[in-house]
Amino acid sequence: MESVGKSFVRVDARGKVTGEAKYANDLMPKDCLQAKVVRSTIANGVVKSIDISEAEKVPGVVKIVTCFDVPDIQFPTAGHPWSVEAAHQDVPDRKLLNTRVRQWGDDIAAVVAVDNVAAERAASLIRVEYEEYDPIVTVEEALAPGATPLHPDIRKDNIFVHTSFRTSPDFDYDKAKERAIEEYGEENLIEVEGVYRTPRISHCHIEVCTSWAYVDTNGKVTVISSTQIPHITRRVIGQALGWPIGKVRVIKPYIGGGFGNKQDVLYEPLNAYLSIVCGGRPVCLELSREECISQTRTRHACKGVLRGLATKDGKLLAREGDIYTNKGAYASHGHAITGGITTNFKDIMHDEYGCRSDGYSVYTSSAVSGAMRAYGVPQAAFLADSLTDDICYAGGFDPLKFRMENCVPPGFVASNGITYYSYSLKECMKRGAEFIHWDEKRREYANQTGPIRRGVGMGIFMYKVGVYPISLETSSARMILNQDGSIQVELSATEIGQGADTVFSQMASETTGITMDKVYIISTQDTDVAPFDTGAYASRQSFVTGKAVKKCALELRARILDYASYMLNRPAEELMIWRNNICEKIHTGDPVPERPARDQAEEKPAEQNTKKLALGGSYIDNSRNDGSVGESAKYSAWLDGKVKEYDIHDLPNGEAAILRDTGVEKDIQPGEVLLSMEELAMNAFYSLDRSEHITAEVTNQCKENTFASGCCFVDIEVDMPLGKVKVNNIINVHDSGTLLNPKLAEAQVHGGMSMGIGYALTEEILYNEKGRPLNANLLDFKIPTAMDVPDYHVEFLEMDDPMGPYGNKALGEPPAIPVAPAIRNAILHATGVSMKEIPMTQQKLVAAFKEAGLI
Amino acid sequence: MESVGKSFVRVDARGKVTGEAKYANDLMPKDCLQAKVVRSTIANGVVKSIDISEAEKVPGVVKIVTCFDVPDIQFPTAGHPWSVEAAHQDVPDRKLLNTRVRQWGDDIAAVVAVDNVAAERAASLIRVEYEEYDPIVTVEEALAPGATPLHPDIRKDNIFVHTSFRTSPDFDYDKAKERAIEEYGEENLIEVEGVYRTPRISHCHIEVCTSWAYVDTNGKVTVISSTQIPHITRRVIGQALGWPIGKVRVIKPYIGGGFGNKQDVLYEPLNAYLSIVCGGRPVCLELSREECISQTRTRHACKGVLRGLATKDGKLLAREGDIYTNKGAYASHGHAITGGITTNFKDIMHDEYGCRSDGYSVYTSSAVSGAMRAYGVPQAAFLADSLTDDICYAGGFDPLKFRMENCVPPGFVASNGITYYSYSLKECMKRGAEFIHWDEKRREYANQTGPIRRGVGMGIFMYKVGVYPISLETSSARMILNQDGSIQVELSATEIGQGADTVFSQMASETTGITMDKVYIISTQDTDVAPFDTGAYASRQSFVTGKAVKKCALELRARILDYASYMLNRPAEELMIWRNNICEKIHTGDPVPERPARDQAEEKPAEQNTKKLALGGSYIDNSRNDGSVGESAKYSAWLDGKVKEYDIHDLPNGEAAILRDTGVEKDIQPGEVLLSMEELAMNAFYSLDRSEHITAEVTNQCKENTFASGCCFVDIEVDMPLGKVKVNNIINVHDSGTLLNPKLAEAQVHGGMSMGIGYALTEEILYNEKGRPLNANLLDFKIPTAMDVPDYHVEFLEMDDPMGPYGNKALGEPPAIPVAPAIRNAILHATGVSMKEIPMTQQKLVAAFKEAGLI
Repeated sequence: MESVGKSFVRVDARGKVTGEAKYANDLMPKDCLQAKVVRSTIANGVVKSIDISEAEKVPGVVKIVTCFDVPDIQFPTAGHPWSVEAAHQDVPDRKLLNTRVRQWGDDIAAVVAVDNVAAERAASLIRVEYEEYDPIVTVEEALAPGATPLHPDIRKDNIFVHTSFRTSPDFDYDKAKERAIEEYGEENLIEVEGVYRTPRISHCHIEVCTSWAYVDTNGKVTVISSTQIPHITRRVIGQALGWPIGKVRVIKPYIGGGFGNKQDVLYEPLNAYLSIVCGGRPVCLELSREECISQTRTRHACKGVLRGLATKDGKLLAREGDIYTNKGAYASHGHAITGGITTNFKDIMHDEYGCRSDGYSVYTSSAVSGAMRAYGVPQAAFLADSLTDDICYAGGFDPLKFRMENCVPPGFVASNGITYYSYSLKECMKRGAEFIHWDEKRREYANQTGPIRRGVGMGIFMYKVGVYPISLETSSARMILNQDGSIQVELSATEIGQGADTVFSQMASETTGITMDKVYIISTQDTDVAPFDTGAYASRQSFVTGKAVKKCALELRARILDYASYMLNRPAEELMIWRNNICEKIHTGDPVPERPARDQAEEKPAEQNTKKLALGGSYIDNSRNDGSVGESAKYSAWLDGKVKEYDIHDLPNGEAAILRDTGVEKDIQPGEVLLSMEELAMNAFYSLDRSEHITAEVTNQCKENTFASGCCFVDIEVDMPLGKVKVNNIINVHDSGTLLNPKLAEAQVHGGMSMGIGYALTEEILYNEKGRPLNANLLDFKIPTAMDVPDYHVEFLEMDDPMGPYGNKALGEPPAIPVAPAIRNAILHATGVSMKEIPMTQQKLVAAFKEAGLI
Repeated sequence: MESVGKSFVRVDARGKVTGEAKYANDLMPKDCLQAKVVRSTIANGVVKSIDISEAEKVPGVVKIVTCFDVPDIQFPTAGHPWSVEAAHQDVPDRKLLNTRVRQWGDDIAAVVAVDNVAAERAASLIRVEYEEYDPIVTVEEALAPGATPLHPDIRKDNIFVHTSFRTSPDFDYDKAKERAIEEYGEENLIEVEGVYRTPRISHCHIEVCTSWAYVDTNGKVTVISSTQIPHITRRVIGQALGWPIGKVRVIKPYIGGGFGNKQDVLYEPLNAYLSIVCGGRPVCLELSREECISQTRTRHACKGVLRGLATKDGKLLAREGDIYTNKGAYASHGHAITGGITTNFKDIMHDEYGCRSDGYSVYTSSAVSGAMRAYGVPQAAFLADSLTDDICYAGGFDPLKFRMENCVPPGFVASNGITYYSYSLKECMKRGAEFIHWDEKRREYANQTGPIRRGVGMGIFMYKVGVYPISLETSSARMILNQDGSIQVELSATEIGQGADTVFSQMASETTGITMDKVYIISTQDTDVAPFDTGAYASRQSFVTGKAVKKCALELRARILDYASYMLNRPAEELMIWRNNICEKIHTGDPVPERPARDQAEEKPAEQNTKKLALGGSYIDNSRNDGSVGESAKYSAWLDGKVKEYDIHDLPNGEAAILRDTGVEKDIQPGEVLLSMEELAMNAFYSLDRSEHITAEVTNQCKENTFASGCCFVDIEVDMPLGKVKVNNIINVHDSGTLLNPKLAEAQVHGGMSMGIGYALTEEILYNEKGRPLNANLLDFKIPTAMDVPDYHVEFLEMDDPMGPYGNKALGEPPAIPVAPAIRNAILHATGVSMKEIPMTQQKLVAAFKEAGLI
């Protein structure tokens, strides 16, 4: 490949290192007003009255609005595609400002002033009278009999949603256990049970949540926001204000990270409203770091009451779990994350008899839980991998061997039909174990004494790339040819620091034949003109939006070749674009059956119930998708207008099914240069005979999905008296299909590993008994710094996934998943102490080691 | 029609009256550097050396560049579409800064500083050594033997281009005169000759010429400019810098008028260069009003040496003219305007024997002449109409009757093939004469005495709507459906104050069936994403870009109906969009042969040499285009997917050929409402089965043209001792086809009439003998104010032109054309004095009246 798979420097590198890249607040006009949200000083209750008389006297105050002034409209905030079916719509459970206070710091009023000093001064002078209820900070409090329902209009108790997953409809853990006793004898079984917990944490993106809004001359309320999801934000602003969506415009410039927090609609609707009530003047609403941590979104704290059953010779028989997540005060992403945890708990392991998991999303009067990198899978992985290692510890199994023998096999098809196409899980584990010297270290660390002990541990994961079939996956792309033969690429899948703009540029270059230096991506999304896309979330972009990019590039290429055909008076089929030139297309091998590129791009997705699955401009004939895997099942795919064939092979012991390109692609080569792209483009613009602005715009609805997977292996040292864990060696091994940009991929993994270490050891938002956050700042909420982390090692298994537009699959979120369980399991290996809870802070570890009599 | 033809309030009205509309400088970042151009203090010569040492010491100076630093690249500036054929390309005759000084104030260096004060201070400290040549301010000086050639690299003398026009190849005025003498006898002939002159004037747009530039994070030099032609500006910046065009981005926000001055590329290339040499920092280059008048572009001063011959019974036999225009120091629009004057001089009148005109574009060392409203036709009209009235005065003919009898007839086809489709010239004259009470006033004012005398006068014109076939006419459009069923319309034909955004919105509304309140036009052009269009000039936009809007709207409508067909499971042909709803389409009359709308929009223009001419998405079968006109020649056109038939009729005495809609269009009506646009749009965005972002983007190459025409009648009062002319009554009558927005059309005419009065009476840029402008400011260069002008009267002849997308044709520029000759001719009527020169200032009039012995 020409552009995909190469480590091009990020297209935004220069702007970001020089500080020239413009973020939302850099674009603010000089006369922009400043808004401050007035926050409740109780966690649960009702606002009885608000006295703004003193606040209004502060010089510079322009407007004060309270929860009694705002429209009586409840709206949803989730960064999901909307559904036209009411049953699948996100739950609207908040207003712009709320009289019913459901968390400490809830939004009850807002002040707009000429500057922040005046706004804050006025906010501090607002007097509020409350009717106060008991705070309900934990899941246990929320579920306790007699607990005040936080949203009685929506749910009569605090259980937002409860879903139940079973591997077969009649699966019951207790019955399975009875069967096991019958089959194997009770003495030949291992059973483990426990309550495992993960914490509420904050995303800690560098740029705080901020936006500014004004009413444009055409009456559109326009919001410039640091968001991952401009098109969704636009829709939600419309819903929140009761305005037509077309009268809302959202602009997303560069943003300083999001990690899912900005995959929710935060204060943009209130910001829009504040501008409107100020006569359309520009109003900025920038949160402080404290507000970002305590008043935006968090990762769901999660509690799993788990059981697991295995035979003494190491076969996993059955598991069950009741999983409770702390949803906080508002629905945000609804039950999607908890539902995901529920199924993900099962996914990676194969239970001989089956598995049950029940998930409960629970409203509490605390910070709202929402999307965060890997969307519930880190919680699910911690629960599942902790249980796995606890079973291994109890049974004396080697955790690697146990996983190798009990994890899902090649050809796995999840309950929702997602097929794990390019299977790699065991190969990943093999590589990780080799790197960390698993067998030697397991032996070496077996019988340690003394206060400092060492251990190795591992965690594994599987990760769905996009959100299909759970939700809509749709993505549009537009490309625009310039006079010099360069192009613009216009998308609404946003660059949020992850490198999306760079890999999209590489994709466009790859498929058009225009070199990277001539591909310009439009990094700023403006919902008025940008093609529709739901934004940056899941690990969907390179997969879902990537298909739209490819489809659009195929369409643009077809239009260019059609013009070349006109100029050269030769059939388009004889021509190709190669490094900014129109060349003769030379077939070096046997004739390849080929479809004209334009037809492909316009082809409608085939019906779901056939075995033809549509890719962006290409087809997969999946000759087996029944969950089994044959020795040489064959895939053939239309990619880039060429047939590629894949064999599933390398399956001697069922350890890896690697799809390999059979090389048919190489049968086409560029011949004589006939025309430069610049000559063609100049003609297309300025021909007196046939003038044409060559552009292409397509929507691709993605009805495909696949799994990525990987693992983490760590080698650690535990100073038990200090409760201190030092990671001496760490590796993540990922199967993410074809790497689009290896250097960026590696950096992506590094960031995830850092997050994983923080998740394992230090990060948690804490509350006092009144429901007030105790550590909503970066001094007390501790994320790892460069001083705290080891050198990171990363390996990739590059397998060409037939579902991915360029053989690629997810990488954005997965790196964060397996690190915490690996560290947790290494501590178990080192000390024999089974930590049931992260973060494993020094305090908690010391307490646990004391309890175990180790210190 | 639903939207076209109604007087909607301007879509930009609110923003412009409230001051919220953003212009280029409103968008400037706080840290923007300020640039000043250092200007030559001689009109003709060479810069020998520049000493910047003192200037560099001024605190705040960031960079100084001189004519010795800039790239050695000559570039063209004309706001024309480029040509891929070298012979038709605009002439590159200037550099970013020039060592060869060709006008007073020529650009020889530039200073960039942190603010204007520092920049101006530094500019004043720069010391320049010149080799000075004699200034060459007038055409006579430039053509004098031995005059220094200003561009010896391009032309050996100062004649830029000379073209020659003859009605037939062998036409010769002197031979025609011999023939006339033979045929009619010398005593039965009237011959008039004279030298007629028009002045150099300034556009005087409200917003001065300004831009600011920076290098974006992707390496693109980005220029935010007050320009009419963003895409052309982009191309020229690339050419001037020697950069790929794709590395240049131009953004055009609202602009405060242009009138053709901003149809040239002015300081944008230098501005881009200054940002680049300042490391990409934002740099603003705003001209003063003085610089705008003397250093940007002007209307060509023109001198016509004319002769005309008629019979004593009022038949125009022959005319000839040698026309010299003062091109100033640089090519700008080249010979296009002078060439136009040359043919336009002939166009409107029919000479029995023929006509000759020779046009000379002459370089002089004075301000550059370029495009200005009506692009040469005001000059041509002044020459032709003055000569006409001088012939009438000499022969005692009534000027109205003479024009009625000698103007071009219905069915006129110009020498370049442009056909005057919906002929109206005589009807316009009839209406104007009726309004001004021509016959009564001619009689009433016949024998006046005393110092104050009255007169009526008239001027007429014909005006080509677009620039085809002289130049390329291409236009692209894009439309984007929103979730609420509203749309964005994205174009690059710019709103420059003329109301283009409003009438484009009306067109989009008309053809899509979406009401005006749901049509949002993107007013700011960004060349990175906006569809290609050459911009605002000629009177092309509602005609040429209008066709692209219509074609795009047809395509969008077809896509919407295709989706409706999918949702409703009914053929798209049975459906229509009516006021934001999908309705059943009901045929109320005979079945109408119909083409599916999508096919129409994609149809390629038919070949030139057939009688099929392509319209935007529709066809004209022009059954006669041989220049003759039959009694009932029939046009049939595909418009809006329906056959419309036109008859040329109302031709009892050849006075008017009015095309009338035969009404076939009315045979389709909306039936039952099946679906709202909002329901459809929400489904299209969010369908799990078929998700589609419905947009449309098309290019329309326009290979059609037609003529608009009209006239001005005035009733004036001349105070001879004061030399003061008072316009007591004035009317313009225009045939502009179907009016798109009558109120805007009227306002457009009002503005043109003001310009015409200023052109007639007060406006002229004057020079001293050193070539330095004497009155480059709005105190001394006098344009009429609201105090100086009478009430304006306007009438329209609304004829549905089959060439126009909605029956419309030109109106933007024509109103300025006929006013000056009408006033000039009224003075002749009032006083018997034939003024040969505008502006007819008080001084000139007093002198003329003295010479005539009247005072």
